[in-house]
Amino acid sequence: MISVSIIEEIIKVVGEKWCLTDPADMATYAFDGFFKDYTPDAVVLPKKTAEVSDVLQIANREKINIVPRGAGTNLSGTSVARRGGMIMPLTRMDRIIEIDSVNRCAIVQPGVVNAELQKAVEPFDLMYGPDPSSWYVSTVGGNISLNAGGPRALKYGSARDHLIGLEVVRANGEIVKIGSKTSKNAAGLDLPHLFCGAEGTLGIITEATVRLIPLPEAKHTLQAVFGNLDDACEAVSEIVSSGIIPSAMDLLDQILINLIQGYGGVQFPDGASALLLIEIDGHPQAIEQESEKIKQICHNNHAIDIVLARTPEENEVVWRARRSIGGTFSKVCKTLINEDATVPVSSLPDIMKKVLALREKYKLNIGIMAHAGDGNLHPSIMTDAQNQDEMKRVDQFAEELYREALSLGGSLSGEHGIGLAKKSFMSMQFEETALKMMREIKRLLDPNNILNPGSYLDEER
Amino acid sequence: MISVSIIEEIIKVVGEKWCLTDPADMATYAFDGFFKDYTPDAVVLPKKTAEVSDVLQIANREKINIVPRGAGTNLSGTSVARRGGMIMPLTRMDRIIEIDSVNRCAIVQPGVVNAELQKAVEPFDLMYGPDPSSWYVSTVGGNISLNAGGPRALKYGSARDHLIGLEVVRANGEIVKIGSKTSKNAAGLDLPHLFCGAEGTLGIITEATVRLIPLPEAKHTLQAVFGNLDDACEAVSEIVSSGIIPSAMDLLDQILINLIQGYGGVQFPDGASALLLIEIDGHPQAIEQESEKIKQICHNNHAIDIVLARTPEENEVVWRARRSIGGTFSKVCKTLINEDATVPVSSLPDIMKKVLALREKYKLNIGIMAHAGDGNLHPSIMTDAQNQDEMKRVDQFAEELYREALSLGGSLSGEHGIGLAKKSFMSMQFEETALKMMREIKRLLDPNNILNPGSYLDEER
Repeated sequence: MISVSIIEEIIKVVGEKWCLTDPADMATYAFDGFFKDYTPDAVVLPKKTAEVSDVLQIANREKINIVPRGAGTNLSGTSVARRGGMIMPLTRMDRIIEIDSVNRCAIVQPGVVNAELQKAVEPFDLMYGPDPSSWYVSTVGGNISLNAGGPRALKYGSARDHLIGLEVVRANGEIVKIGSKTSKNAAGLDLPHLFCGAEGTLGIITEATVRLIPLPEAKHTLQAVFGNLDDACEAVSEIVSSGIIPSAMDLLDQILINLIQGYGGVQFPDGASALLLIEIDGHPQAIEQESEKIKQICHNNHAIDIVLARTPEENEVVWRARRSIGGTFSKVCKTLINEDATVPVSSLPDIMKKVLALREKYKLNIGIMAHAGDGNLHPSIMTDAQNQDEMKRVDQFAEELYREALSLGGSLSGEHGIGLAKKSFMSMQFEETALKMMREIKRLLDPNNILNPGSYLDEER
Repeated sequence: MISVSIIEEIIKVVGEKWCLTDPADMATYAFDGFFKDYTPDAVVLPKKTAEVSDVLQIANREKINIVPRGAGTNLSGTSVARRGGMIMPLTRMDRIIEIDSVNRCAIVQPGVVNAELQKAVEPFDLMYGPDPSSWYVSTVGGNISLNAGGPRALKYGSARDHLIGLEVVRANGEIVKIGSKTSKNAAGLDLPHLFCGAEGTLGIITEATVRLIPLPEAKHTLQAVFGNLDDACEAVSEIVSSGIIPSAMDLLDQILINLIQGYGGVQFPDGASALLLIEIDGHPQAIEQESEKIKQICHNNHAIDIVLARTPEENEVVWRARRSIGGTFSKVCKTLINEDATVPVSSLPDIMKKVLALREKYKLNIGIMAHAGDGNLHPSIMTDAQNQDEMKRVDQFAEELYREALSLGGSLSGEHGIGLAKKSFMSMQFEETALKMMREIKRLLDPNNILNPGSYLDEER
């Protein structure tokens, strides 16, 4: 609990309206996109960097935990108050400070919604690379803190690849500005990237300078339906080896196909067991040829139906069904757990086989979506957190899945982070010397462990 | 000086042949690409990670300075023994461990020469992004330590943008492995990037996993000659704004044109005052159209001669003259100092004007080359380090140049690093809180300050 006098001190900084302690509000902020809830003691919503700094000085002095968050859409439990304390949504800091179209970058506050940034830069024929499924609500600050990706990370990279400058507030309240607008920069230590993917454990991002990319001239999407998953995986391998880099290549299994069948009028043919959505973008003539090549590869791998979407409207139709998946889960299960195992793309067929075997072994209802082109697998486990027996099998499934992904040279996360979900697996991926270095950096920057404590960086775990 | 017993201990680790103390050898390793020399006490050339670790344990225990280096081509004085101690070239660790063409990455030891890696991956239709002018001798480890770029960083980014994994040895000898082969990775703190651009001050890179890029299908180079520098700068602005991202766009001024005039049979027309070399690559039809567009832009900006190189042989001819610059300097001056001021590309005309004014003001012989597309300026000061009066003006020129670049939102370095050359300017670019954080990280990872001491990270400067 936080004492009344401390709450009063914080109210002096942010104003009464922006320091919440009401139980109803606490319940609202007890969740993120993961399924475990932790009720915070307070929620503080700063409007500017100086307020973040003042609140952190108080929190650091009083050893009060602070969990920064954007929209709280994270799927690994990185933005809940695992050890109590205050949630600090940065959502009121939502100003696009500058769009610099010539230097192709934008300076934004952390609470700017990804989709709002995309919309704001589109008139300049530019886009921001990261496109997480949550893009219409998740924030740029949250995207950076989690090193978020999305389907088009395949071609354009994740948040890390688009970050060139940050303003962060340290645990002690110090404001640090790092990076510049230049596309090249070899001066000083690369501090911005240290905070990217740190899940709010090292400092609080209060401003970011991000690269923008020219909007591609044209875009095609191939929707290829296969009679079995193996054929689809083989097609992915051949496309990757062909030298073509699609802007997205998502793979859905039969369970997900059945789930979205009929959505928005979309109908897949009988026997559809795997669906590939392959988006390519770039110069119109180049993608005409690439489309043809990809079509041929899908054909050679026994695709039973191929649709080529050329216009923005046609593209929208084929992607709409794919994007609808998130919404449909709530109709079929109480709790959805989204895994994020990632392997080198050459190991996609292996990990896919493993997932199928584990699904069988643990008798779980799992739909499989993969950003197939970069080996980023999202098995969606449809379960019920109240069912203890099933949840035990979910845990066993996850552990075996990640162990396999790591044995194939993979990673515990492609884009969702570690959070609560995979904290206990970190020693499977990293040797002790690496984890030690991470914990030393954490202790250096946050000696009182007030920033998002309860993470894999805690000294006592 | 290092005691005989310590040298003997080090010899036990690497073998007698690979621990040098002979004065002639020390003279060889007293220099890098900057003009100041510092004679080391010893040179140790390890063959494997375990040897690096053993040597560091001895050095850390005895507080002996270690300066890691690749080929020692650095232009800012980052790889000389500024505070004495041992130079540690990683050139014997020169094995390409793996080329993974499907996952488009390579695992290399730090001493692999950039050009050797390029040659090795070319049969797989792949390339390594960074292409510093020194690529035929400089090493991948050195490139990463300096966050090196090159002409094509404009499109493909610098070393930072291609780094996905590292093995480093800490000052205390601990071996830390971080990163993976997956193109997406959101697990753990982003430690690899902390060591990229750290100039060997935080740890010694003993292995790197780097991304590879598909070789472009086709390549064109436009060589456009202008009657004055303003017109060339205006053409650069228009090309950048057009949405085309060339793979390189280098600008040379009249002094450099005169220097390379006639080299390899290359002849520029009378009145040539500025030269633009614009390389575009990608799909053949796409670059045909882009060439046309760029040609038109150059034409509209009063280019007096435009040559379009389409074949590999034609490309080679136009770039040969440009690449010859480095060699020609030695004929016209005793000491060459290469500056590396970088600005947002929109400020290129401003910084160019400033350089011309400063060249006049300080009466220096300066040829100007710029990676114009990313605002990375390399004024080459042709001087004589023995001429104290002139060297004073060189210092004044540099300080004014960097002050101007920073006031335009730029950086002290685009690709050469800080080293000795710009150490005293760091507080012009970074606020004290940022420098403090960098120094804290340095002290954490290297408490005895044995790794490349004398840098801007020293506590006492």
